[in-house]
Amino acid sequence: MKDKFSFKLIKQSGSARVGIIETPNGNIETPAFIFCATKAAIKAVDIERISESSTQIILSNTYHLMLQPGEDTVAKLGGLHKMMGWNRPMLTDSGGYQIFSLGHGSVSEEIKGTRKKQKTLIKINEDGAVFRSYINGKTYCLTPEKSIQIQQKLGADLILVLDECTPFHVSKEYTQRSMLMSHRWAERSLNEFEKSNHGKQALYGISQGGVYQDLRRESCDFINNLPFFGQAIGGSLGQSKEQMYDVVSFTMEHLKKDRPTHLLGIGGIVDIFHAVELGIDTFDCVHPTRLARHGGALIKAKNRDSISSKCKEHINLRNQQFELDDNPIESDCLCFTCRKHSRAYIHHLLKAKELLAYTLITIHNVFFMNKLMESIRQAILDDRLDQEKSNWASLDLAFS
Amino acid sequence: MKDKFSFKLIKQSGSARVGIIETPNGNIETPAFIFCATKAAIKAVDIERISESSTQIILSNTYHLMLQPGEDTVAKLGGLHKMMGWNRPMLTDSGGYQIFSLGHGSVSEEIKGTRKKQKTLIKINEDGAVFRSYINGKTYCLTPEKSIQIQQKLGADLILVLDECTPFHVSKEYTQRSMLMSHRWAERSLNEFEKSNHGKQALYGISQGGVYQDLRRESCDFINNLPFFGQAIGGSLGQSKEQMYDVVSFTMEHLKKDRPTHLLGIGGIVDIFHAVELGIDTFDCVHPTRLARHGGALIKAKNRDSISSKCKEHINLRNQQFELDDNPIESDCLCFTCRKHSRAYIHHLLKAKELLAYTLITIHNVFFMNKLMESIRQAILDDRLDQEKSNWASLDLAFS
Repeated sequence: MKDKFSFKLIKQSGSARVGIIETPNGNIETPAFIFCATKAAIKAVDIERISESSTQIILSNTYHLMLQPGEDTVAKLGGLHKMMGWNRPMLTDSGGYQIFSLGHGSVSEEIKGTRKKQKTLIKINEDGAVFRSYINGKTYCLTPEKSIQIQQKLGADLILVLDECTPFHVSKEYTQRSMLMSHRWAERSLNEFEKSNHGKQALYGISQGGVYQDLRRESCDFINNLPFFGQAIGGSLGQSKEQMYDVVSFTMEHLKKDRPTHLLGIGGIVDIFHAVELGIDTFDCVHPTRLARHGGALIKAKNRDSISSKCKEHINLRNQQFELDDNPIESDCLCFTCRKHSRAYIHHLLKAKELLAYTLITIHNVFFMNKLMESIRQAILDDRLDQEKSNWASLDLAFS
Repeated sequence: MKDKFSFKLIKQSGSARVGIIETPNGNIETPAFIFCATKAAIKAVDIERISESSTQIILSNTYHLMLQPGEDTVAKLGGLHKMMGWNRPMLTDSGGYQIFSLGHGSVSEEIKGTRKKQKTLIKINEDGAVFRSYINGKTYCLTPEKSIQIQQKLGADLILVLDECTPFHVSKEYTQRSMLMSHRWAERSLNEFEKSNHGKQALYGISQGGVYQDLRRESCDFINNLPFFGQAIGGSLGQSKEQMYDVVSFTMEHLKKDRPTHLLGIGGIVDIFHAVELGIDTFDCVHPTRLARHGGALIKAKNRDSISSKCKEHINLRNQQFELDDNPIESDCLCFTCRKHSRAYIHHLLKAKELLAYTLITIHNVFFMNKLMESIRQAILDDRLDQEKSNWASLDLAFS
């Protein structure tokens, strides 16, 4: 029987590349963006609008779904695809990121020294992580094996090994110990995965090692030598964009080139161009959809000229300047929102706290990201990625 | 030039009737239900899903729109239709209902003796009503003339005269004084309307008189003698369903038969059948869309057999019994939601507080109401309205 998963490289231009990930639920043309349907729903948008916005793949979070409705309920309902009515590729993460970020606090909270929510992480040890449900306080234990079992019940096409998301503010020694434990967890994940893999899912390993080149090299070698289908760059990527680019760049030099490579949690336009140039194939981030729920609409560099905006990648439709602006978010955009509605209408909906505002901006941002990735793929095929960048990102940022 | 508005009676069966209201934005087949797009949006649903759910007409509230974004902003954006991307008929109310219900408290609060929100109504006198904005505390004065001017700027097809929504717990003397003032307001509204009517809008008068037969008769005579296009039954309809049916029945005997007749604020299935039997042509109510945002999905009597539900007209999808129920809300329903999603998925979305739950149930409830009205029209055409009732409403209620 033909393997249902494959990764084919179509074209390379510099280190950037166009490829196809084949899955039982269809193909993913890469570079691709993966949108967050955290709790088995893209927030505020029905799945048909997501589908008609050229979306190739979405992800759900194991952490949220194991707590509610529980993986057994999802399995009884036929798995994530059937439960939510999505028949294209899906990814689930391992649950680790939320356990550790809710436990330690997020990277930004860590850097800023702020800590708002109650800690839910009780302990981490060799076996796994013990944490408290944010819904009802019940205690859960997530081990590498358990994470795979849960992801098998959820039934996404692409799944991830459990790793410890090392905080940024720890010593190199801590980072090393954490990396070695995540390596042992990766092996345990793989063993558990292979026990009952019937070709319906494919597993990704995750490179660790924080910002330390020697640790990253060691981690890449380790992941390269295990039979993962794909690989992700995880762990701490540093304190600044520059450091993040350095870490990704260094890591990419050491990872195998024949596997689809995912960069966890990155979704800015400029960041995506940088990472694609380094050979990254897929991205995920809450940014485009979360931004929408704060009134932020993504906008191409060339459409930004007439608008005063502090941010270079989006406009905030809450701003008073849009009260009477009856242009669509982008006049050259063919998304549902831009074909039907004006900035002024969405501005009104935001002021009136109408949920429809979040729906409409999310649809635009999803469509925008898919068009961005499509343009990136075409530009790689045409060996003109650098020129393409100027259509989407301001030059001052793009070439910083 | 041919008048752009007309009301044609197609068929009468008992007092129930099928008709067509012609407007510049298209026809409304009656009996029809008018959905609330309070602040120029159906809450949680994009307008194309509302349109594809066979919706003929929606309404927006003058009260909310005059406060935000303001009628001048709506006018600058081309009026309500253009602003919100809706190209079928629309209605606006006068603003009175919200001023008086937020000012006096709602009828149910009044009956129960509860009063939660701060009163915003400052005074009512012959000139009009002075009230405070719930958004910023600013003082507004709404007169009959001002309400017409605002509604002309909003640009809906069907508009209403300003009236005082008489509270229930007042004396007959108060009700009479209030009725007479509303009559004077109705004349002032009509005068203001005729100053600048270019055939793009049609005005409805409102019958007053509370629960008192002599006052209702007097009010009907008054409204009948003024050149309104349509008429609505307003004011207090009493304390119970039985009293409401009595008041509507009595009022209908005295209102002109050649005008489209609207019953304000009624949206229950059994209530609609009763009112249609008395000759009512159109209804509006927040019920179907508000119910959806509380997890309530409307369901036909014949689909209720296997479900234990306290309410006879809907099921509450929050209930645990739906956790693993992978049937659609109604298996014979062709709405977007029932074609795509299960009760179990919507149950999960409600538990997870995903906005998509409100979207999906609202779409079902809107489609349901439109199918209900379509079935009612067909049943009148076939002289079998009484039999049709048993498909939609439980017999014990339907014939109470």
